[in-house]
Amino acid sequence: MGPGNNATAVDLENAYKLGKAIALKGWVLLTGGRNLGVMEAASKGAKEVDGLTIGILPGNSTLGLSEAIDIAIMTDLGNARNNINVLSSDVVIACGMGAGTASEIALAIKNKKKVILLNNHGSSQEFFQEIAPKNVVIANSPESAIETVEEILAN
Amino acid sequence: MGPGNNATAVDLENAYKLGKAIALKGWVLLTGGRNLGVMEAASKGAKEVDGLTIGILPGNSTLGLSEAIDIAIMTDLGNARNNINVLSSDVVIACGMGAGTASEIALAIKNKKKVILLNNHGSSQEFFQEIAPKNVVIANSPESAIETVEEILAN
Amino acid sequence: MGPGNNATAVDLENAYKLGKAIALKGWVLLTGGRNLGVMEAASKGAKEVDGLTIGILPGNSTLGLSEAIDIAIMTDLGNARNNINVLSSDVVIACGMGAGTASEIALAIKNKKKVILLNNHGSSQEFFQEIAPKNVVIANSPESAIETVEEILAN
Amino acid sequence: MGPGNNATAVDLENAYKLGKAIALKGWVLLTGGRNLGVMEAASKGAKEVDGLTIGILPGNSTLGLSEAIDIAIMTDLGNARNNINVLSSDVVIACGMGAGTASEIALAIKNKKKVILLNNHGSSQEFFQEIAPKNVVIANSPESAIETVEEILAN
Repeated sequence: MGPGNNATAVDLENAYKLGKAIALKGWVLLTGGRNLGVMEAASKGAKEVDGLTIGILPGNSTLGLSEAIDIAIMTDLGNARNNINVLSSDVVIACGMGAGTASEIALAIKNKKKVILLNNHGSSQEFFQEIAPKNVVIANSPESAIETVEEILAN
Repeated sequence: MGPGNNATAVDLENAYKLGKAIALKGWVLLTGGRNLGVMEAASKGAKEVDGLTIGILPGNSTLGLSEAIDIAIMTDLGNARNNINVLSSDVVIACGMGAGTASEIALAIKNKKKVILLNNHGSSQEFFQEIAPKNVVIANSPESAIETVEEILAN
Repeated sequence: MGPGNNATAVDLENAYKLGKAIALKGWVLLTGGRNLGVMEAASKGAKEVDGLTIGILPGNSTLGLSEAIDIAIMTDLGNARNNINVLSSDVVIACGMGAGTASEIALAIKNKKKVILLNNHGSSQEFFQEIAPKNVVIANSPESAIETVEEILAN
Repeated sequence: MGPGNNATAVDLENAYKLGKAIALKGWVLLTGGRNLGVMEAASKGAKEVDGLTIGILPGNSTLGLSEAIDIAIMTDLGNARNNINVLSSDVVIACGMGAGTASEIALAIKNKKKVILLNNHGSSQEFFQEIAPKNVVIANSPESAIETVEEILAN
């Protein structure tokens, strides 16, 4: 999960690496499915190594769908689809920060999911760790995020 | 799409054949994902020939998920998830009849999707053809339903 | 509940009378909230006699909201909001027929709600009574629909 | 908006005062509708002075509904109903903090709504002001929150 419109260059690079690493592990990548920002970068990373990519779209058609998505789920729910994103994920990695991403992190915590924050956004790290110390883990690189996913899945 | 709880033996046999035929065509099977009725039968048919199966679940966990589903989308939307089922399908095949199935047919029509009715339920055929003559096609066998899908996809 | 775009003159007259009668009974009117068709007519009927009107809108803003709605709920769910319409109603009256209305009737039945059909659309009457004989009642006038609501609420 | 389960005594007192003040202004109070925490306290405050209260429930029935709610909207959307809460509000006041409340603040910001934070939770104030400086206002009392609402509505 991560910003569509205001992703930084570092967010996009991290997302691409995450997508690639997720696919190389044999895991399925689930994103918000759109052709921009962190969603697009992660999906492209996964497809470069033939991963399987799922996109949970906010609209009712394939408009705005990333070409790197294999399976498009059209929800027509707007931002309420963010709840489906996190419910359908075994682990949530939030790459970068913004209002939509913050809603996904909060919904993931509410649904008792583990969330890994990969960003250098200090106030988000402090806030989310404060409201859910057991569910939120900080990662400082895509590699470290993937290692954390492995530890979570092993438990 | 089709009944979970009150599917007839014929519905289940048709669903199994449909799932298998869909997978053999190389198409992806999308169902409501639960481990009962038409959803389960279609998913098993698809998996027997190594098809890819997606289940759009009404709940917030994998509780009640069919073992024949590869990709589970947890919506926590209850029956509102029926709208996602039809929006995410290229063509909707309704196999059997019941209130949930009727809601999916109606939502499919509302979303301008093509719907194939595979049942021997005369009043449903009459009703849905009357409200959407251009969107609703009657099929009298799984094979004929698959042929109709091919014609729709070719247009 | 009833068609937005293809309501007949009789549907609109019935809807207006229903809205007025609902308000005169001291009941709250809940509709899809838009400024067209059966929703608009029923809401206007209720407001003429100072009833309270609730509109469950498909969009994320007040765009297209009927001026006769007191309380607008913006769902941004598209047609999935139809499930909220019926869940939030004590009794559902379907005035006229169309794909959206059919989805509401089917969802109401699925959610074990009582539905009153007020139309002269024979195939819909036959179909819905066949799939849910205990939940579906036919009314041949707004007055008779209101009487049926009273009987249902008394049980 | 505010926590159901982990509201502090101060949150509950603030919520009650907010509900009362909102009703005295002649505004409609919209909450998550449940019979606990900030939702319940605010609704009770509003009802004490005969305000109108709306509850947007996560479930499909009136189970868990606050007795202080006049109009119950049953969504059956689980936490996805949080998006409806904020979309249907002219101004969002977040009273207290928790994962569900954080999701509502984030969704409100995403939907370009104004949000007033009434809490003494420093990291949430810092975080949300950082991601949306123009949409987030800090209030240090119910009275100040109400004044801010008036300013927002006047613009």
